[in-house]
Amino acid sequence: MTTLKNDTFIKALLRQPTDYTPVWMMRQAGRYLPEYRQVREQAGSFMALCTNPELACEVTLQPLRRFDFDAAILFSDILTIPDAMGLGLYFTEGEGPRFNNPIRTPADIEKLPIPDPEIELHYVMDAVRLIRKNLDGSVPLIGFSGSPWTLATYMIEGGSSKNFAKIKSMMFNDPALLHKLLDKLAQSVAAYLNAQIAAGAQTVMLFDTWGGVLSGENYREFSLYYAQQIRSLLKTEIDGQRIPTILFTKGGGLWLEEMAKAGYDALGLDWQTDIGKARARVGDKVALQGNLDPLSLYAKPEIIAGKVKSILQKYGDGSGHVFNLGHGILPDINPDNVKVMVDAVHEFSRR
Amino acid sequence: MTTLKNDTFIKALLRQPTDYTPVWMMRQAGRYLPEYRQVREQAGSFMALCTNPELACEVTLQPLRRFDFDAAILFSDILTIPDAMGLGLYFTEGEGPRFNNPIRTPADIEKLPIPDPEIELHYVMDAVRLIRKNLDGSVPLIGFSGSPWTLATYMIEGGSSKNFAKIKSMMFNDPALLHKLLDKLAQSVAAYLNAQIAAGAQTVMLFDTWGGVLSGENYREFSLYYAQQIRSLLKTEIDGQRIPTILFTKGGGLWLEEMAKAGYDALGLDWQTDIGKARARVGDKVALQGNLDPLSLYAKPEIIAGKVKSILQKYGDGSGHVFNLGHGILPDINPDNVKVMVDAVHEFSRR
Repeated sequence: MTTLKNDTFIKALLRQPTDYTPVWMMRQAGRYLPEYRQVREQAGSFMALCTNPELACEVTLQPLRRFDFDAAILFSDILTIPDAMGLGLYFTEGEGPRFNNPIRTPADIEKLPIPDPEIELHYVMDAVRLIRKNLDGSVPLIGFSGSPWTLATYMIEGGSSKNFAKIKSMMFNDPALLHKLLDKLAQSVAAYLNAQIAAGAQTVMLFDTWGGVLSGENYREFSLYYAQQIRSLLKTEIDGQRIPTILFTKGGGLWLEEMAKAGYDALGLDWQTDIGKARARVGDKVALQGNLDPLSLYAKPEIIAGKVKSILQKYGDGSGHVFNLGHGILPDINPDNVKVMVDAVHEFSRR
Repeated sequence: MTTLKNDTFIKALLRQPTDYTPVWMMRQAGRYLPEYRQVREQAGSFMALCTNPELACEVTLQPLRRFDFDAAILFSDILTIPDAMGLGLYFTEGEGPRFNNPIRTPADIEKLPIPDPEIELHYVMDAVRLIRKNLDGSVPLIGFSGSPWTLATYMIEGGSSKNFAKIKSMMFNDPALLHKLLDKLAQSVAAYLNAQIAAGAQTVMLFDTWGGVLSGENYREFSLYYAQQIRSLLKTEIDGQRIPTILFTKGGGLWLEEMAKAGYDALGLDWQTDIGKARARVGDKVALQGNLDPLSLYAKPEIIAGKVKSILQKYGDGSGHVFNLGHGILPDINPDNVKVMVDAVHEFSRR
């Protein structure tokens, strides 16, 4: 077990004292970086990049060469599990992810296998191992997965969706069938995250990108319940080291109290939620990660710095805060503005 | 002044006792009705339909012939004001609203006129008068407008938007310029709603469709502030009759306490917000309107009825509830399911 040179991120997630507030950024390895676009070009397609451990490792490390991030996050996609289940993931320009074989019938759900992460998803585990080796203990590596509800939306809609008509029809008219799918996905996600942990992920995060399109009642039954199931299946201690866990539901600001009881060490916050009010609501149950509006990075440097300071002040004193955006960075953001954000977090939060 | 034969809707908004919970539906005059599609076809374009008072009146009345709705809502579009300001509104298949002359420069904002509702928007006022005449006091007529923030998003983005990059860039980098635009829009909206009231609208509703994409701080400064301004300018008593007002921010569930202080009689709720919890939060400050997930109307009749009952029970006893969807009905919903919802509201809520 490598001893981490910088364990600020892990400590903050566990609400232990830190010298400053750690920071990383959703989609920090991505299209806003010219060096990423070059590797993406070289790979030929997005999936070719995801499935090539050397290239996935390279783009994971790129942002750490530019910015003082306190964590690395595995470069991958949230939809690797449905792909490993045989749905045939591909990406179209402008339309996002699509499946060759979306779920159309109850039989399609019945026959879905639970993938073995070291077989169907070995390319992810190889990437995790390679990244850990290359990080050489500099900062911790975050592994992740999409949440069962979020994965199910893509699998049933066949891709991105505006209204989620197909999955909601199933949810209202045949909830037992949807639960069957979500249960298989929860088992698959737990196995996948445990394999990432075994391969070297030092924190894992569950991305529930679409939980926020549900009513509170439906969120509890069809999304949060499975996040809890997964948490109960995670092996979060390895060689005496705690592996912190993060739950992020975009649009979940109304349900933070319930999310805080799901067993995760930290909650991710979107930018709509005031982080000071969020902290008052969850108390000392969980750490909080967030929550600058990603669009703030279009602002001038001094304005970005002001917004960073404001979020740090709203969170207030004491440990338990990881700075992040409230959602992924956009592709046309100037990388210089990311540096402004990262340096401002470190400067203003130094105790 | 016609005495209303059915004033249940007005009474509920004013939190006066009613015999049952009134119900109407956002986009109740719309594409899910074959008779609407026929008139829309006849009109030639969506804007031709909006600007023809006879046809706008006809489609406003259509849903009342089928369902026992307790209110009619003016058939129009939220973007009539920017059109009247000279931006040239049109609609494209699949892409939604567009402007021939979106806002590109500060000078574009400087030169924007504040429309005179009885001149540039006379077609709306003619429609209001004609609908009132044809309703003949059966149920009240709701007038409406988009909120300044929501109108500004379309005017600056040039149409619908995913990330609101242009308006948020302006908000962060030149807030004074955006405030200038929002101030003009607030004056225009207030004049427009006052003209609708003078022409016969018996309730007015402010649709803040995109307030929910803001942080709490930005929502307060760039959306809610102008909703308050408008409310303070509204003439809400006419011939001794109170004209109730409704504020609806989609995605605004986190900010209900603040919204409840903006002076409106009622708040519209999206479907993510639990109506029982919302009521506990706003107390007796405002009535609540909502909040069935519009996608619930894909469900089987007995499931729809169950969901209606659940929302009525969550709201609980006492006055102050207007039943509605949490957002507009989708075009491919079976009209029979609307009847199930409306009848279930009346049946289960009868005191």
